[in-house]
Amino acid sequence: MRILLDVMGGDLPPHELVKGGVAAGHRLDVDILFSGEQAAVSHALTRLRERDGSKFSILPSSQVITMTEPPVQAVRKKRDSSLVNGLLALKEHTVDAFVSPGNTGAVVAGAIFIVGRIEGIPRPGIAATIPTVSGREIVVIDVGANVDCAPDHLLHFALMGATYARDVLGIAQPTIGLLNIGTERAKGNKLAHRVYDLLADAPLPFIGNVEGHHLLTERPVDVVVCDGFIGNVFLKTLEGGISAVSNILRSGVNRNWRGRLGGLMLRPVFSLVRKKLSYNQSGGAPLLGVNGSIVIAHGRSDAVAIESAIDVAYRAAKCHLNETMAKGISGWGGNGR
Amino acid sequence: MRILLDVMGGDLPPHELVKGGVAAGHRLDVDILFSGEQAAVSHALTRLRERDGSKFSILPSSQVITMTEPPVQAVRKKRDSSLVNGLLALKEHTVDAFVSPGNTGAVVAGAIFIVGRIEGIPRPGIAATIPTVSGREIVVIDVGANVDCAPDHLLHFALMGATYARDVLGIAQPTIGLLNIGTERAKGNKLAHRVYDLLADAPLPFIGNVEGHHLLTERPVDVVVCDGFIGNVFLKTLEGGISAVSNILRSGVNRNWRGRLGGLMLRPVFSLVRKKLSYNQSGGAPLLGVNGSIVIAHGRSDAVAIESAIDVAYRAAKCHLNETMAKGISGWGGNGR
Repeated sequence: MRILLDVMGGDLPPHELVKGGVAAGHRLDVDILFSGEQAAVSHALTRLRERDGSKFSILPSSQVITMTEPPVQAVRKKRDSSLVNGLLALKEHTVDAFVSPGNTGAVVAGAIFIVGRIEGIPRPGIAATIPTVSGREIVVIDVGANVDCAPDHLLHFALMGATYARDVLGIAQPTIGLLNIGTERAKGNKLAHRVYDLLADAPLPFIGNVEGHHLLTERPVDVVVCDGFIGNVFLKTLEGGISAVSNILRSGVNRNWRGRLGGLMLRPVFSLVRKKLSYNQSGGAPLLGVNGSIVIAHGRSDAVAIESAIDVAYRAAKCHLNETMAKGISGWGGNGR
Repeated sequence: MRILLDVMGGDLPPHELVKGGVAAGHRLDVDILFSGEQAAVSHALTRLRERDGSKFSILPSSQVITMTEPPVQAVRKKRDSSLVNGLLALKEHTVDAFVSPGNTGAVVAGAIFIVGRIEGIPRPGIAATIPTVSGREIVVIDVGANVDCAPDHLLHFALMGATYARDVLGIAQPTIGLLNIGTERAKGNKLAHRVYDLLADAPLPFIGNVEGHHLLTERPVDVVVCDGFIGNVFLKTLEGGISAVSNILRSGVNRNWRGRLGGLMLRPVFSLVRKKLSYNQSGGAPLLGVNGSIVIAHGRSDAVAIESAIDVAYRAAKCHLNETMAKGISGWGGNGR
């Protein structure tokens, strides 16, 4: 298997991302094709005592799509960017999967224009895998690909999220919940009401509405469905709540001897919190619904995060997630609807 | 001043809520009119060695609107409920403010039908005051009164939130931010784009978009504006993130002697976290934009939370917030728009 890594569009420099790619290449026994500025990648490989060869190779590009560029225009104009070149390589099956920590909107736009959508899926969705207190993960879809959704888009998110949870995360019979502002059926806005009706009528393991305050502690479902605007607010707010607590704890621990002693005693507990609830480190988020394995890593990804994002891409490609998804959509479409 | 407390619709029994009302009545030197079942309130007062008199009195009712009832129907049908009777007392100026831990939707619907909207405000909004790491609060409006908003509703939320922040919280020149999924102007859904344009053109101290992950730690603004669905998801998710961390810490501290020792050393730090970030205890949320001081307390409110909600109602009524708001709307409406 060969996985493409876009090393140019992230917040950290190419050499840090190449490091993650090399680590993943060795650990997973896959080949990595680095998409980016040739000299930078080549230099990074040399520093890591690797060389441009068959295991690690370079797809040279002269342009970079930055984080703040308008996605659609950027993809159209920057034809020799690491992002566009990488997606072309995926389309042409030069690689089996694509990973980028770059501009999320540009990856989504490029994926739709270049790689194409799975038939029957008008809107691909980004699935984030979030850790919970129990240690078991939850899939949240969509977390930002579509900020204005029609009800049937969320129906597709539900199906794709459940397929992903089953085939990649290994959850046997994933249950589905709708992110809402109350558990009763009548709660929520117009979109939520219509999505609830669609999900309740569909042959899917839909269990009803779920809410932000109990998702991490009670883990009521395996897959949470929402529109991309809500999903993105949800993810960032969760991160905000967790970092607020960490912030107060950190300054408390550093304040005096008592704090420092307490901090020392609770070091294993604090690292458990970090391990269980670290959103930045946990892999990348796959873009589901396009004709290829595409994983979007956090913009702030370091080598460890990149390695973990490549792992997600590897698992998705290995189990032929997209083929299953395409079959699932058509099979399910005829299933009584 | 006389404040009405609805003691029937909350999750906790009337005697717990009466306790909060009595405490607030003594501390703030206000009279409390308890709306609810006469025998229950009377019994609770006796237990607290108080009596039905001028300071503490009872507005008897025979019906209760529960948490799960459809709001509009409940308000229409249950004419002798503690909630409806209480709002009628507010409308007739028998009391200066109204506090209820009951069905939020029913309080909002009842407030609009019975008490009425301030002229120029088509949609009242619920303003939540949330604590941040720095100790200074942020106002978030709307957190659930309106789940489907037009852009100009958010413009009114901005104005009402800023007035509340200035007159009740004492923030001299409150700044306003729009809750979004990125800080750049182009980010967000259709509603966010249109609201951004409206806010940028209005004579308001609008500083741009804000995001969930930095609100508590960086506190970039004093007032955060959003539609009620997003705002409610935001509040609950924040609570979820914080309780996930607390949950892991708690079991870590209780696991072994090392954890217990650490917990003992860090007790002041943990209580600082609780003090700084406890959403349930912090007061009630005023419903802004109606012709009367109405405060919605958390459904799970205990006596302490009720006392704090009455405090919010007291401060809002004392500074004649509604009169200022009505003037603000008309004054600002003519201000170049």
